[in-house]
Amino acid sequence: MMIQLHPIGVIKSPVTKMSPGNWGRVQSEIHLEKRYTAGLKGLEGFSHLLVVFFMHRASFVPDKHLLRRPRADKDQPKTGVFAQRTKYRPNPIGISAVKLLSIAGNVITVQGLDALDNSPLLDIKPYMPIFDQVCDASLPQWVDRFEEGYF
Amino acid sequence: MMIQLHPIGVIKSPVTKMSPGNWGRVQSEIHLEKRYTAGLKGLEGFSHLLVVFFMHRASFVPDKHLLRRPRADKDQPKTGVFAQRTKYRPNPIGISAVKLLSIAGNVITVQGLDALDNSPLLDIKPYMPIFDQVCDASLPQWVDRFEEGYF
Repeated sequence: MMIQLHPIGVIKSPVTKMSPGNWGRVQSEIHLEKRYTAGLKGLEGFSHLLVVFFMHRASFVPDKHLLRRPRADKDQPKTGVFAQRTKYRPNPIGISAVKLLSIAGNVITVQGLDALDNSPLLDIKPYMPIFDQVCDASLPQWVDRFEEGYF
Repeated sequence: MMIQLHPIGVIKSPVTKMSPGNWGRVQSEIHLEKRYTAGLKGLEGFSHLLVVFFMHRASFVPDKHLLRRPRADKDQPKTGVFAQRTKYRPNPIGISAVKLLSIAGNVITVQGLDALDNSPLLDIKPYMPIFDQVCDASLPQWVDRFEEGYF
């Protein structure tokens, strides 16, 4: 079975090379295809969005990526791809919660989006705490180290 | 441009018909293709996951769905598809934060997944607060009403 998706726009970012961090201050523009502009009505009422995009420059190689040390750090345990947020995944779908800065026509400006320039846009969803905010989430200790410098 | 994805498993849910709510207590099994089982190593350390799936029974009809009253409620304002979490989207990718109950081989049992039975699985990501938890998110008032009874 195969699933076919069509990009609905493109992400314009100042970040053009694979980058391991410092995403927090990055401002990106999401250029939605104009035929979808009406679909943005009401989005301005939300402070944050989920941006769903295709990580078009990451290829998944099972022997290399199914088990991998997070961020290729030799002090980290070998960990499965589904226990990590690495871009090297069987279906490289990026999901990022970002701050909405402005909407002008079909262009949405956001802050903190960890997508490379020209990433194809798949979806935009409003960030809704009932769906997206888990307040009592617990996680393993290695993540503390992973997080340093990402945003 | 077209993007091709391949399901990496299937979701088995007791919910077989389109349902507007009561997802909170639903327990579902995610059957990952066995060749990916090693990719689950370390996932047991997380309390919550993001399940990414294809909403295979929802078709997007622009004239009907680009602008729509949330949950077809006539007291709601007409709102764009990208300001809603409706399943009727140009790329029907479902993203749900759920509670991890258990992992046995290639079968992951979760609670609160709003996916219909037999939905194709696209990805599993660990829920990481640094990425997924926005504590100061604000949103429009109509969402309060929308949320009643969903979980």
